[in-house]
Amino acid sequence: MKPVLDETHDPSARSWVESANSPDSDFPIQNLPFGVFRRHSDSGAKVGVAIGDSVFDLAGLRNENLLGNHADVLSAAEACTMVSQAPGAISLNALMALGAGPRRALRLRLFEFLRNDAPSSLRQAVARHLLAHTEVEMLLPAVVGDYTDFYASIFHAANVGKLFRPDNPLLPNYKYIPIGYHGRASSLVLSGASIRRPCGQTREANADPRFGPTKSLDYEVEVGFFVGRGNRLGESIPIREAEEHIFGICLLNDWSARDVQAWEYQPLGPFLAKSFATSLSPWVVTMEALAPFRAAAFERPAGDPPPLPHLSDAGDREFGGLDLTLEVSLQSARMREMIMPPAVLSRGNSRDLYWTMAQMLTHHASNGCNLRPADLLASGTVSGPDIAHAEKSARGCLLELTSRGANPITLPSGEQRKFLEDGDEVTLRGFCEGSGFRRIGLGSCRGSILPASI
Amino acid sequence: MKPVLDETHDPSARSWVESANSPDSDFPIQNLPFGVFRRHSDSGAKVGVAIGDSVFDLAGLRNENLLGNHADVLSAAEACTMVSQAPGAISLNALMALGAGPRRALRLRLFEFLRNDAPSSLRQAVARHLLAHTEVEMLLPAVVGDYTDFYASIFHAANVGKLFRPDNPLLPNYKYIPIGYHGRASSLVLSGASIRRPCGQTREANADPRFGPTKSLDYEVEVGFFVGRGNRLGESIPIREAEEHIFGICLLNDWSARDVQAWEYQPLGPFLAKSFATSLSPWVVTMEALAPFRAAAFERPAGDPPPLPHLSDAGDREFGGLDLTLEVSLQSARMREMIMPPAVLSRGNSRDLYWTMAQMLTHHASNGCNLRPADLLASGTVSGPDIAHAEKSARGCLLELTSRGANPITLPSGEQRKFLEDGDEVTLRGFCEGSGFRRIGLGSCRGSILPASI
Repeated sequence: MKPVLDETHDPSARSWVESANSPDSDFPIQNLPFGVFRRHSDSGAKVGVAIGDSVFDLAGLRNENLLGNHADVLSAAEACTMVSQAPGAISLNALMALGAGPRRALRLRLFEFLRNDAPSSLRQAVARHLLAHTEVEMLLPAVVGDYTDFYASIFHAANVGKLFRPDNPLLPNYKYIPIGYHGRASSLVLSGASIRRPCGQTREANADPRFGPTKSLDYEVEVGFFVGRGNRLGESIPIREAEEHIFGICLLNDWSARDVQAWEYQPLGPFLAKSFATSLSPWVVTMEALAPFRAAAFERPAGDPPPLPHLSDAGDREFGGLDLTLEVSLQSARMREMIMPPAVLSRGNSRDLYWTMAQMLTHHASNGCNLRPADLLASGTVSGPDIAHAEKSARGCLLELTSRGANPITLPSGEQRKFLEDGDEVTLRGFCEGSGFRRIGLGSCRGSILPASI
Repeated sequence: MKPVLDETHDPSARSWVESANSPDSDFPIQNLPFGVFRRHSDSGAKVGVAIGDSVFDLAGLRNENLLGNHADVLSAAEACTMVSQAPGAISLNALMALGAGPRRALRLRLFEFLRNDAPSSLRQAVARHLLAHTEVEMLLPAVVGDYTDFYASIFHAANVGKLFRPDNPLLPNYKYIPIGYHGRASSLVLSGASIRRPCGQTREANADPRFGPTKSLDYEVEVGFFVGRGNRLGESIPIREAEEHIFGICLLNDWSARDVQAWEYQPLGPFLAKSFATSLSPWVVTMEALAPFRAAAFERPAGDPPPLPHLSDAGDREFGGLDLTLEVSLQSARMREMIMPPAVLSRGNSRDLYWTMAQMLTHHASNGCNLRPADLLASGTVSGPDIAHAEKSARGCLLELTSRGANPITLPSGEQRKFLEDGDEVTLRGFCEGSGFRRIGLGSCRGSILPASI
C-alpha cells in the first residue's frame, strides 16, 4: 500500500518539548509511539506517548476533556484508558483492536497539541500531563495472545542452514512460504529484564545427552509487529488489506540456546531453545510514523520464483519494505568495569528481508487462522548480505557472526566471544533516517545475562 | 506421585441425581468434572460441574451460602464466580490458579451434596441449582494463554516418521526429550464447532507449489491437560511436584492438513497445517477423579535409554501413566442420510504414551519457561502398537490408518476414505473403566467438516 504522507511527517515541524527537536532523538514530534508506563511501582498502568525525553499521559489528557469532540479521537482515547484483558491491566490492546482510523485521528490530535505553534493556553493545559522518562517505569505494551516468529531473512536462513545442514542450507520451501512457527507468549519480557541463562538438554558429538546450563546462549535481532484489527476464525486477510491490520512495530530479541536448539529442533521445530525469554522494546512505533521510510520489497534475484498470487501485490512490491537500520551492541562485565562503552557488533536493515510484513501476516491468516488484536508477529533474525570491507557485519546473531563459535569475535576489552557470557549486556537499537525526513527511532531493547540457577 | 483414594472414589457411592448412577454415564458422582456454561445465548457464563445428565451451577450454590465455612471450599467457589481475563468472561482460570488444595476441598463438598444419603433439606436446597445438559450451552472451559502440543506416542512418531522420512523414521532425540512445539491458542474451539476446510500451500511431487483447499485433512486424537498452579519465569518444576501443577484433562482434536504440513514443516515445524482449528471437549476431568486409573508409565523396551535424572522419578514410573481409552468415530454425510451410526475407526490408550504428563510438564519448565494457570498442554496423537487380529486399530489419525492415503479405509456405507471429506463428522470419546471402580468419562469432542471457502 502506498504510504500516506501528511503534515505529521513534515521534517520542519518542531515541538515545544525541546528535547524532541534534537536531531538524534528517537522520539521527535513526527514519531509519537505508544507505550504503557506507571509512575511508581505501586501506581496503576497508563498509556503514554513518547515525545523527546518525556512521556505524555493520555489518561490525564482525556480526564480533563482536552481532546475535543472528534469521535475517532475520543474512541481512541477511551481505548487507552480501558482496562482490558486481565483485571486491572491497562494495555494497548483496546487501542490496537480499534484499527487504523482512531489511531490516526489520535496521532493528528497529539501532533497539534505538541507542535511549537500550538496555542499557549492549550500548551499549558497539556504540559501538565508530561512526565520525564526518568519519572516512569515502562511496562509491556500489550497483553499478547499469540506470538509468532518468522524466518524472513534469506541471509539468516542460508547462514544458519549452512551450519546445521551443510549439504542442504536453504530448504526448497523457503522462497515460496514465509516460514514461521509459534513462539511462547508467557515469557515475553520488557527491555531491561535480566535473562537467566537457561538449562536444557544437549548432546555433543556422539556423547550421551546431558542436562545443564546452555553453553551457546545467543541473541537474535528482530523486528516485532503487533496486529491491530484482527480477523475472524475461518477468514483470511487479502494482501492488499494486510497493512491495515498492522498497528506498529518494536524491537525484539529472540534469545536462543543454540546447543539446545540443535538437539531438540527435529522434527517439530525450536521449543525450549527459545521459550525461556523474548525481550521487547517498550515503545510501539505506528505504521503512520514509518510512512516516509517505506521502501520497495526485497528484489528477488533472477531465477527466484515470484510469490504465489495470494502473497503478491503491486503495492507490497513497491512499498512493502521498510528502511530500518538495526544495530546490536554488547558490553561485557569487564567492559563495564573498564568504563568502556558497548561495542557495536552488527548493523543490518529490514529492507533485506525476503518477505514483507504484509506477506507474513497474509500467509499467517491464509488458512483461516484468526489473528487477534495485540497478537505479536516477528521477522526472525534480520541479517543482510556479507559485503567485503563493510564497516560492520550485517549478521544479526552470534551463531552467524562467529560461525557457531568457530571464529570468535574480539571485544574492545580484548575478551573473545563465541556466544554470550554471564554479565554480558546486549542492546538492540533501531532507527529510520535519511531522505530528508526526521529520524524515527524505536528506542532500545536491552537485556543482561544472569548465571544459570543450578 | 502415588494417587490418593478416598470416599469420593468408592464405587458403591450413588447420587440422588439418578442419571449419574447409570453404569455407562460418563459423569457419575465419582467424576465431578468442571466446565463453563450459559443457559441462553444472551446470559452470562457460569462455572458448572457435570453430574449424570445435569449441570450443577456453582454460582447459584455460592450465592445461597450453601457451601459452609471451609476456607478452601469458599476460595474455590469464589474463584468459580470471579470474572478473570477478558472483561465479562467467567472461566476456570481462577480456580485453576488456586492449585490443588481448594479444588480437592470443593470436590469433597460437592460429593457430600450429591450423594444419595445427603440430608433431604440440603438436597432440596441444592437441587434448585441443577440444570439439564439440554438447557445449557457449553463454552470453552478456560482462557488459554499458551497451548503446547507434544509428540509423546512413540508409535505415532514412528508411523509418521516412516511416511515423511522412510530412511530416518524415529529421530535420535526422541527417547531423550519429550518432543513438543508451540501450538496456536487463538483457534482453540469447543466441541461442536464446525471446522472449515483450510486452504494452504502444497507441492505435489515436482510440480510447482499451489495454493488451495487441503486435499488431506486429518484429525488427531489427543489428551489435553491444563496447568493449575503455574511457575515463575526462571524457575523450573521438579518432576516430583509436576502433577501438583496439573488441574485436569480433556479431549483434544488437533485437526491437521497433511499436504500443507509436508511442504511447510522444515525446518521450524508445523505451523499453518495445524493453526486453523483445534477442538476441545467441554468438561475438564480433575486429576482427583482419575486417581483410580493411574498406571505405571510406559515400559521402555530393553535397550532404550532411561530418562535423564531431571525427568525421572519413581512415583512417575509407578503411577505416571493413565489407563484412559480413546476412541475415534466417523460419520459421513451419506451415513447420516442412511441413518447409520458413526463408525468407530480406532481405539487407543494413553498408557501407550512414551512420556508421562509429569515428564512433559517438567521438561516444558526445565528451561525456566513460565507455565501459567490454564495453559494447555497436549499429548500429541495417541497411537498404540499394531496388534494382529486386534478388534480395532490403535492408530489415532487417518495419516497412520491409511498410510498417507495408500490404503484407504472403507466405511459401513461403502464409502472409502483416505482423508476427511466435507460433511464428515469426527467424534472423539475418552473413558477410564475397570478394576472395580466406576467408569470416569471425558464426554466427547465433535467436529464436522465444512467445505473450503474458496
